Amino acid sequence: MPGKNILYAQSGGVTPVINATAAAVIETARANRGRVGKVFAARDGIMGALEERLIDTDKLKKSEVAALHQTPGGAFGSCRYKLKSIEENQREYERLIEVFKAHDIGVFFYNGGNDSADTAWKVSQIGDKLGFHVQCIGIPKTIDNDLAVTDNCPGFGSVAKYVSVSILEASLDVMAMASSSTKVFIMEVMGRHAGWIAAAGGLACREKGDPPQVILFPEVPFDRDKFREKVRKSVETNGYCSVVVSEGARTPDGTFLADAGTTDAFGHKQLGGVAPVVAGMVKEDLGYKCHWAVCDYLQRSARHIASATDLEHARAVGKAAVELAIDGGSGVMPVIKRTSDQPYRWKIEAAPLSRIANHEKTLPKKFISADGFGITPSCRAYLDPLIRGEAYPAYRKDGLPDYVRPEFVYVDRKLEPFEV
Amino acid sequence: MPGKNILYAQSGGVTPVINATAAAVIETARANRGRVGKVFAARDGIMGALEERLIDTDKLKKSEVAALHQTPGGAFGSCRYKLKSIEENQREYERLIEVFKAHDIGVFFYNGGNDSADTAWKVSQIGDKLGFHVQCIGIPKTIDNDLAVTDNCPGFGSVAKYVSVSILEASLDVMAMASSSTKVFIMEVMGRHAGWIAAAGGLACREKGDPPQVILFPEVPFDRDKFREKVRKSVETNGYCSVVVSEGARTPDGTFLADAGTTDAFGHKQLGGVAPVVAGMVKEDLGYKCHWAVCDYLQRSARHIASATDLEHARAVGKAAVELAIDGGSGVMPVIKRTSDQPYRWKIEAAPLSRIANHEKTLPKKFISADGFGITPSCRAYLDPLIRGEAYPAYRKDGLPDYVRPEFVYVDRKLEPFEV
Repeated sequence: MPGKNILYAQSGGVTPVINATAAAVIETARANRGRVGKVFAARDGIMGALEERLIDTDKLKKSEVAALHQTPGGAFGSCRYKLKSIEENQREYERLIEVFKAHDIGVFFYNGGNDSADTAWKVSQIGDKLGFHVQCIGIPKTIDNDLAVTDNCPGFGSVAKYVSVSILEASLDVMAMASSSTKVFIMEVMGRHAGWIAAAGGLACREKGDPPQVILFPEVPFDRDKFREKVRKSVETNGYCSVVVSEGARTPDGTFLADAGTTDAFGHKQLGGVAPVVAGMVKEDLGYKCHWAVCDYLQRSARHIASATDLEHARAVGKAAVELAIDGGSGVMPVIKRTSDQPYRWKIEAAPLSRIANHEKTLPKKFISADGFGITPSCRAYLDPLIRGEAYPAYRKDGLPDYVRPEFVYVDRKLEPFEV
Repeated sequence: MPGKNILYAQSGGVTPVINATAAAVIETARANRGRVGKVFAARDGIMGALEERLIDTDKLKKSEVAALHQTPGGAFGSCRYKLKSIEENQREYERLIEVFKAHDIGVFFYNGGNDSADTAWKVSQIGDKLGFHVQCIGIPKTIDNDLAVTDNCPGFGSVAKYVSVSILEASLDVMAMASSSTKVFIMEVMGRHAGWIAAAGGLACREKGDPPQVILFPEVPFDRDKFREKVRKSVETNGYCSVVVSEGARTPDGTFLADAGTTDAFGHKQLGGVAPVVAGMVKEDLGYKCHWAVCDYLQRSARHIASATDLEHARAVGKAAVELAIDGGSGVMPVIKRTSDQPYRWKIEAAPLSRIANHEKTLPKKFISADGFGITPSCRAYLDPLIRGEAYPAYRKDGLPDYVRPEFVYVDRKLEPFEV
C-alpha cells in the first residue's frame, strides 16, 4: 500500500523499551519515504485513535526520535481499553475505519500484548468487510512474556534483568544483616497470570544455596507448610532466606495471596501487595525478622538497567513491522524466533495474529524445579540470553538519565468528535 | 602506633558503597606496611569483635579486594547491636580490650552511623582507663545522611541517585497510563527519622509541574486534607500524580502512618509499609486508581546505579581513616567538608567523635518548600552534586554484575569463648 500513512498505537502496560520500538518504526518509515507515508501516533493508544487525537511524528526532530530509544514509559500515552467484539460494538470499529479514511491511513500498528493482537486482527477483518482494506500489524510488547508463538516479548528481558540484579543485590544486604537482625527478605514482582518475571529472579542463583532460595510462582499452588519449612531450612543452612514472590501467587483454590482480605485500621480492604502478606506469615510461623519490597512500576520502567538484548529485540520488531507493511503484510505480527541458545542467535519472522490473539503462555512445568520453589537448568538456558548486555541511557551532568518528553504536534481534526 | 594491627568493623544497615570504604582501608594499609600492621575485619560487626571472629584480610587476593569496590551489602557482615553504657556493661568493653591485646590491635575502625561513633568514642575512653591505648576512629556510613558535622554520609548519594532515577522512571510510566488507568503512583523510601532520602526524590523534578508532585517528609506532620487536595490538583492539572513517601511520615501526634494499625484477614497486625496506607487514603478520598512500590533494601543495595561522587567519598573516608591512624589520631572521624557547590569541591577533615556521637541531623526547614510537599532550590543545590556520575559495576557475560563473596580466612582464636 505505497504512500499510505501508518497509525502507530501503544497498548496496555508500558515497558522500559516500548519507546525504542516506536522510534524504530519512525526511523524505518523515514528511511523508506515514498514506499510508506507518514507515521501518526495515537495519543493514549486506541482511545486517541477513536477520538482522532493523532500525533504527527514527522514533526519530531531526529534527535527527539533518537532519544526515545532510551526513554522508558509510553511516550505517546498508552491505555487499558479493550474493544469489545464487533457484534457488541460495531460503532467503534466503524469509527476507527472513518479515522483511517480521513487521514489516509492504510497501515495500523498495534504495539501490545495478546488483547492488542486480537484487536488488530478484528480491525483488519472489519476493514475488509467495510470495503476499506487496512493492513493491521501487531507489534509484540509485554513485560509478562506471555505471548504465544514469539520466543519472548520485548520488554520482558529488561524487567528480567532488573529483577535478577535487584534480588542479587538485596540478598547481599540481608546476608550482611542476618546475624543480628533481618533474616528473611521478600521481593514482590509482577506477573499476575504467568511466572516468567518471578522465574527471572532465579537467574541470580548460580550455585546451590545461592539466593533467591525461594520463588513463589502463580503456576504452583501456595502451600504454607512447605513454604515455612523451605524458609526455615534456608535460614538454618545459610543464615538467611531470600524470597521472590509473584503478585499472582495463589492458594490451591485459586485465591490470590494478595487478596487474602487485608484490612486497614478502619476496616477497609487494603490495596494489593502479596509481599506483606507473605512477610506476615513468616513472622507468625517462624518469628524471623523480615524485610519486604514491592517493585511494582519500578521494574517495568527501569530503563537505567535495560537489557541490551531486549533493546535490540524491541528495535527489531519495530523495524520489521514497517518492512512487513511495505511488503503488503496484514493480520500478522513480527515475532522473535530463537535459532540457537549457545551462542544465542535469533531472527524475526512474521506470524499470523490469529495464532497469538487471546492466547496466554504460562511458564511450562519443565521450567520449575521439582520442589516448586526454583527454576530448572532448561529455564535458565531459556532466560539467560535475554538479560545479556547493559544498554545504559545517556546521563545529564546533573546525574539523572537524559529522558525526553517531546512536545507533540497534532494532526488537524477532520471528523466530528466521538465519545469513547 | 607503628606496626599495630587495625580492626575494621561494619555496623548497622549496609549501603551500596560500604565495601568500597573497606577496600580503601585494606588497600591503604597495604600501601603503608610497616607504618601500620595487618587489617583484621570483625565478622558481623562488633559481635564478631567480641566473639573473636576475626577475618585476616591479608589473605584476600588483590583482585578480591578490588572487587569489593563494586560489591554492595556488607562483605564481612554487619550487625545491629549497640553496646550499652560502660556503667551498664563494662564486661563487653573489657572483652574488646582483651581481644585487642591478644591480637596486637592498636587501631579500631568502626564504620557506621552515630551509634557507632558513640561506641568508638567509648571504646577509646575505656582503653585509656584500662591502660591500653587504642586509637578509635569512626568512619562515616549511613544511607540516612543524618550524621552531624560531615557534609554528607557515604552511602546516601547512591541511595539518592537510585531514588531520584526510580521516581523519574516510574512517573514516566504512570503518565502513560493515566488517561484510562492508574492516576497516582506512590513510592515508599527509607529514612525513619530524617527526610533526606525522600528529599532526593525531589531531584527528579526539574521544572514546575514535574514529578514527583508530592513528597511526604517525616519532618512535616501529615495532613490528610492538604494531601488530598494536593493530589487532586495534580491529577486535574497533569493528569496524574507521583508521590514519594518516607517510611517516617507521621501524623501530628507523632504516630507513623505505617503503624496506623493495619491488620490482616486473621486480625493480626501487618508489618509496616506506609505506601499501601497512603494508597488506601487516595483510593478512599478521591477514588483514583493507585499503584505503589516499596523500595526497602533495593534502594540501599542498588550498587548497579551507584553515584560516582558517593563512591569517591566512600573510598576517601576509608583512605583517610588509615592516614589518621598513621598520624596517631584517636576519638575522631574523617568527615566530608564541602568547599564549593559550583563547581562541586570537597575535602576530608578530621572531626572529634564527641561532636558526632548520638546527634541526628534532620532535614532543615529551609530545604522544604512552603507547602511542605517539595524541596527548595537550596536543598537541590545541596543534593545535586551527590548523585553525579555513574559508577557502574563490571558485568559478567551472563548479564549479572560481577559481585564477589570472598572465602575468608579467620585469625586463630587466642581467648576463651565469650557470649554476647
